[in-house]
Amino acid sequence: MLELRLVQGSLLKKVLEAIRELVNDANFDCSATGFSLQAMDSSHVALVALLLRSEGFEHYRCDRNLSMGMNLNNMAKMLRCAGNDDIITLKADDGSDTVTFMFESPNQDKIADFEMKLMDIDSEHLGIPDAEYQAIVKMPAAEFARICKDLSSIGDTVVISVTKEGVKFSTAGDIGTANIVCRQNKTVDKPEEATIIEMQEPVSLTFALRYMNSFTKATPLSETVTISLSSELPVVVEYKIAEMGYIRFYLAPKIEEDEEDMKS
Amino acid sequence: MLELRLVQGSLLKKVLEAIRELVNDANFDCSATGFSLQAMDSSHVALVALLLRSEGFEHYRCDRNLSMGMNLNNMAKMLRCAGNDDIITLKADDGSDTVTFMFESPNQDKIADFEMKLMDIDSEHLGIPDAEYQAIVKMPAAEFARICKDLSSIGDTVVISVTKEGVKFSTAGDIGTANIVCRQNKTVDKPEEATIIEMQEPVSLTFALRYMNSFTKATPLSETVTISLSSELPVVVEYKIAEMGYIRFYLAPKIEEDEEDMKS
Amino acid sequence: MLELRLVQGSLLKKVLEAIRELVNDANFDCSATGFSLQAMDSSHVALVALLLRSEGFEHYRCDRNLSMGMNLNNMAKMLRCAGNDDIITLKADDGSDTVTFMFESPNQDKIADFEMKLMDIDSEHLGIPDAEYQAIVKMPAAEFARICKDLSSIGDTVVISVTKEGVKFSTAGDIGTANIVCRQNKTVDKPEEATIIEMQEPVSLTFALRYMNSFTKATPLSETVTISLSSELPVVVEYKIAEMGYIRFYLAPKIEEDEEDMKS
Repeated sequence: MLELRLVQGSLLKKVLEAIRELVNDANFDCSATGFSLQAMDSSHVALVALLLRSEGFEHYRCDRNLSMGMNLNNMAKMLRCAGNDDIITLKADDGSDTVTFMFESPNQDKIADFEMKLMDIDSEHLGIPDAEYQAIVKMPAAEFARICKDLSSIGDTVVISVTKEGVKFSTAGDIGTANIVCRQNKTVDKPEEATIIEMQEPVSLTFALRYMNSFTKATPLSETVTISLSSELPVVVEYKIAEMGYIRFYLAPKIEEDEEDMKS
Repeated sequence: MLELRLVQGSLLKKVLEAIRELVNDANFDCSATGFSLQAMDSSHVALVALLLRSEGFEHYRCDRNLSMGMNLNNMAKMLRCAGNDDIITLKADDGSDTVTFMFESPNQDKIADFEMKLMDIDSEHLGIPDAEYQAIVKMPAAEFARICKDLSSIGDTVVISVTKEGVKFSTAGDIGTANIVCRQNKTVDKPEEATIIEMQEPVSLTFALRYMNSFTKATPLSETVTISLSSELPVVVEYKIAEMGYIRFYLAPKIEEDEEDMKS
Repeated sequence: MLELRLVQGSLLKKVLEAIRELVNDANFDCSATGFSLQAMDSSHVALVALLLRSEGFEHYRCDRNLSMGMNLNNMAKMLRCAGNDDIITLKADDGSDTVTFMFESPNQDKIADFEMKLMDIDSEHLGIPDAEYQAIVKMPAAEFARICKDLSSIGDTVVISVTKEGVKFSTAGDIGTANIVCRQNKTVDKPEEATIIEMQEPVSLTFALRYMNSFTKATPLSETVTISLSSELPVVVEYKIAEMGYIRFYLAPKIEEDEEDMKS
């Protein structure tokens, strides 16, 4: 028997909106630790890892480890029927091939339950080793989303270059080139508006903007985003979910012969 | 000679938006009693009845009964040119084949008149007998609209089941099933947020969601909606128009062999 | 060397949105006087003239007269990447075939530079002689935009008729006819809401609504619009740009055999 009650139900709605553009079908794994997901995008280029820790739920009962295969578009359709202030409870009986989402309005006058069929999905869980990164950039999530969107109107890839002074996002396309520099800034009024750079050594890597733009669908989940970069590793774009966990997106850098042209 | 002056002109704009999805062409009937319309939808499944009583107009002159055939999309195009605070006057000369809509801005600086050709439309006026209903549900109009929209993302039909405790809306489709229960609640701060059930006996009926969704286009006209149900009668979905009259939508229940499957 | 620094960068964004629907490619001319543009629309029916005077820039350096050919859609793409509060600086080196747009966020934490290739565009500068107009109408820009949009849902052309009492906009189409009269009104609380008519003699001219609607894309630039009309001249639709200059649109009246029919 599984029963997870989340008072801030809108959070689960945002999680689904954050990942359903990248992933169609995926297994949600429930254990005593929490509710988690790990999935490759449909073209097997990017990886998503979600964790919602059990402590973040008002009520969390998970009698035995359970892996539930869901179609994320169908799940998003059902979650969109929850009001933004609704309490969401996720329920599954042992051995059942369905999962039930229950939505309670704040005043308890409206109770909805949506039952969805589960799917059998083959998946292997990748071990993601902890790693040291050459540079870690923490910046406002909305700013990062705006930059990825803006650069997409010019080019297809972004070069992210980190120095002690700041982080530079560059692109080039048929109509011209663009460079956007965000300076390190720790002394802002609100900590969530800071841009903070932890750097071991300068790094400059190229990524497909298409995926970066998909990752920024998680922007409503967090005020800040953390981008961890190393020459030999996939970038990690992480959105913390307050008091519960995180969504992390992994993407390998592009190795391009003409990459040097773009480092202006 | 016909001359109807409506200070709250935005109301006529909302009436048109409420019915033009269902009905293409219809006769508006003017008499000493008021301005009314009765029309079947284009597939002859649903019926709309509108009444705007003469007392609700600032000025109401109707020398003789008049039936004016109008294309509702063209009429809506013209009414959309009226500002939301404009006074709307509807004029027609006896024997004329046109109708004029006059829009006056509140400060009288802008006066527009739009003249539209009338059409000959065959129609028979159905007598709708007063009936006793097994159950009458009064609930917030926005809540009803949200439920119909949400269920449409899952299935094509809705089962509306009324008991003393509340009203349940259910559907089923390829991706799963959904049940939404609204509990009776008379003790809310604002009367328009109440859900009130008057029930002679429990009733459970199935309707096409497509029509229910069309009916909810009338939501901007009223804070509340009244749904009257009986096993042998079309459902009536009524939106009152403050101090003037109503829009009522009628729809026959579906008689389905598999209806029982959905009563979970 | 050219370097123009505009603190109110959103103004340049609005200028581009105002003209890019009409004009694809155009030369921007820079001189000691200011930054200007003159271009025919792609079907050679309407003319746009823009002037931003040098005094309106925070910093204006233009060592020698320069004509820079730009694709306005590409330029608009780049300017859309500027924040609404950003300071925009336009730079070009002598003899360079590129122009650079630099965007600085108000707190200087984010600096972007976008480089765009210039184009060779043949164009002849038309001398536009000063003229006496039979009637000049000054009215709220949003009101004029609303009228052009509303009339477009009925017909393709607008007859603008000016008398001492007011200005009338008329159209006719398959579904009927429309007349909108705006009365002269100088005694409003806010001067930008006034409708003021300076008339030598009554005038009535017909124009294509399609172009009028394109002109109204400049509405965000100015609270008021000035429409100057004479029988033998193109109409001038002018939007003043506060303390900097103007955008003027010129359009020849239609000479139609059936024009009389519409003067009702």
